[in-house]
Amino acid sequence: MSKVLIVNSGSSTFKWKLYSLTDEQCVAEGMVDRLGQKNSVFEIKYDGRKITENESIPTHEAAVQKTLEMLLKVNAISSFTEITRVGHRVVAGGTIFKDSVVVTQKVIQQISDLSELAPLHNPSQVAGIKAFEKILPGVTQVAAFDTSFHQTMEPENYLYSIPYEYYEKYGARKFGAQGISHRYVSMQAAKFLNKPIEDLKIISCHLGSGASIDAIEGGKSVDTSMGFTPESGVTMSSRAGDIDPSLVAFLMKKLKMDNVDDMVDLLNNKSGLLGISGVSPDLRDLIAVKDTNKRAKLAIDIYINRIVKYIGSYISLMNGVDVVIFTAGIGARNAEIRAGIMKHFAYLGIKMDEDANQNGSGIHRVSAKDSSTDVLVVPTNEELMILKDVVRLTGKEDANELREKMVAY
Amino acid sequence: MSKVLIVNSGSSTFKWKLYSLTDEQCVAEGMVDRLGQKNSVFEIKYDGRKITENESIPTHEAAVQKTLEMLLKVNAISSFTEITRVGHRVVAGGTIFKDSVVVTQKVIQQISDLSELAPLHNPSQVAGIKAFEKILPGVTQVAAFDTSFHQTMEPENYLYSIPYEYYEKYGARKFGAQGISHRYVSMQAAKFLNKPIEDLKIISCHLGSGASIDAIEGGKSVDTSMGFTPESGVTMSSRAGDIDPSLVAFLMKKLKMDNVDDMVDLLNNKSGLLGISGVSPDLRDLIAVKDTNKRAKLAIDIYINRIVKYIGSYISLMNGVDVVIFTAGIGARNAEIRAGIMKHFAYLGIKMDEDANQNGSGIHRVSAKDSSTDVLVVPTNEELMILKDVVRLTGKEDANELREKMVAY
Repeated sequence: MSKVLIVNSGSSTFKWKLYSLTDEQCVAEGMVDRLGQKNSVFEIKYDGRKITENESIPTHEAAVQKTLEMLLKVNAISSFTEITRVGHRVVAGGTIFKDSVVVTQKVIQQISDLSELAPLHNPSQVAGIKAFEKILPGVTQVAAFDTSFHQTMEPENYLYSIPYEYYEKYGARKFGAQGISHRYVSMQAAKFLNKPIEDLKIISCHLGSGASIDAIEGGKSVDTSMGFTPESGVTMSSRAGDIDPSLVAFLMKKLKMDNVDDMVDLLNNKSGLLGISGVSPDLRDLIAVKDTNKRAKLAIDIYINRIVKYIGSYISLMNGVDVVIFTAGIGARNAEIRAGIMKHFAYLGIKMDEDANQNGSGIHRVSAKDSSTDVLVVPTNEELMILKDVVRLTGKEDANELREKMVAY
Repeated sequence: MSKVLIVNSGSSTFKWKLYSLTDEQCVAEGMVDRLGQKNSVFEIKYDGRKITENESIPTHEAAVQKTLEMLLKVNAISSFTEITRVGHRVVAGGTIFKDSVVVTQKVIQQISDLSELAPLHNPSQVAGIKAFEKILPGVTQVAAFDTSFHQTMEPENYLYSIPYEYYEKYGARKFGAQGISHRYVSMQAAKFLNKPIEDLKIISCHLGSGASIDAIEGGKSVDTSMGFTPESGVTMSSRAGDIDPSLVAFLMKKLKMDNVDDMVDLLNNKSGLLGISGVSPDLRDLIAVKDTNKRAKLAIDIYINRIVKYIGSYISLMNGVDVVIFTAGIGARNAEIRAGIMKHFAYLGIKMDEDANQNGSGIHRVSAKDSSTDVLVVPTNEELMILKDVVRLTGKEDANELREKMVAY
């Protein structure tokens, strides 16, 4: 029984889900937290049980070894070779990777070369891929990129109004991110509505601790709120999103900052909901105190405000909208935020169904029957999307047949 | 016959218009170009004639002196004291000036103290005010600010998602600009439509070499595309508008730039239409070559794209729109750009009247009769708006009565 491991190798975490290839069911999942530190935590959920172990897991290789050993130990697999495919989430695919790909030595080099666009992520993902090469020699690996879905953007949407030569020489352009999620939820939404995605104008709101809004027309991403990096766009947990770029210079002087990277750090890690509120980067914490804490209330108002403006901008860019999707931690679970956002679109004839918005679960419609536009909650599943890409690119053959097939790569 | 001089003291230009106080008619206008250089140009238009003189005009004081002497020489005034009021356009009013004000020594100091927000402009405007103090002692002066109109913005619109203390300590927030123009055209539009401005949701597009979009609800600016500085927002002639702030750090490294001010200069003076096209900062030049020059075409597409997105974002912010206004050089004169922008709003039932859009003049409607929203061209007149503020604040009394009245200040 072939199994597929879908992994997300971060710089300090290693997350994974194990799927059965034939029926695409998730059979186990887990993670390593505090990877590279002395007090790493290993966690596995299988067959209704959850096991947590504390031990030092210094490298991605050690994380992979530990994961496979535990899968064997709990009988989730009967041998390492049962895992015939590994799918990796990779953050930056630049302009090279317009789709997921089967990993070759050339691909590994290209992912490594793109590290400048995601200095914390791509090197970790290369380390993850190499760890599997070593521990499961000959295993077929697939890389799925957060940026690929947005490679359909037209130049007028992905270019900045800066000297054109910086695009040509240095690749300074919008790449977007969270594309695996936006692609998944838009496909799910079309299926749910029983309409061809080619006919739909969709706005997808992925609202987690990172957040982005995506304009999707005919199944293709036409514009997205994250830019050259995932720092820009809407207000996030600790990321500022869009600011006047002149503020970078102004604040560096005020703060007597010499290194512009310190400003990038500030905009990524000390801004957003955390920076405005001074309370927490977690929206739930802010909602809990909003009646007594003015700045928590303000952070929520700003959060909603920026999302409303992005949705509005994309409605006009596409000259209309058929479906608005909410997904990820906040998007799928917070009815109050969804209602706060969507009340700005009454002018378009969008009406919410309060009961469905409060009480629905799974993929469900939260707009009223007589709403001009469908508003849906669609739980995202990036691992499943990557699994589907693994199957699309490598088929469902068993280990031996797969090996022959992969010789072509 | 009391006269009012409305002036705009820039760092290298000094522009003015002379009005008759009683009937608010412009009787003469002119400018000094290349102020502070050896080859300054003085220009005056009066009574159908235009006089141009070349001579060194080294200071704002010399510019004022020359202007008054020429007004006397051509008989636009019979004595210096006929000018009882001078109105000044001032760029940055910070949070202090929520309206135009009569100039006092305290006001001069405050404008000077705000120079950090407009390093090229406020000091020149202070120089202009002081020149009149010296040459026309006792004259009543009024300062009108580009930022005042936007002081009605709510915190969720004027705050950035950065640590709140930077707003408290350093005043890092959105101020907006071009408010004198947005205020003027929105008032004119309401008058033209014969509707109370209190009932209208207006989006004003001031599209000149600088450009901004303003959301105006009930006559009050609720949000605007220019930010902490006039660099941000839409694509402009040579200004980048919004970019991913992380690009500032990325490009500084690529360009081996040590000083972040060089990046600010790049984003203000080498970007926008000029930067994308490599051809010209002037949209007319780009339109002329767009069929044969790909990058010129691209610059136009990006220009339209960014305006469309801002309009869309403000429609959703206000939950609808009653009037869209186009003004300034490009906005009032370029039918093709207006049509290119507004075709994105067909989803809202906005329809253009092609003939009116191509052939109208003065203030006129360019939307079709059955359009859901009025689209108007409204020529701006910032000097007239300042004059109206001068009259509102100082009345129409002659020199002696005015002097008594102004003792209160």
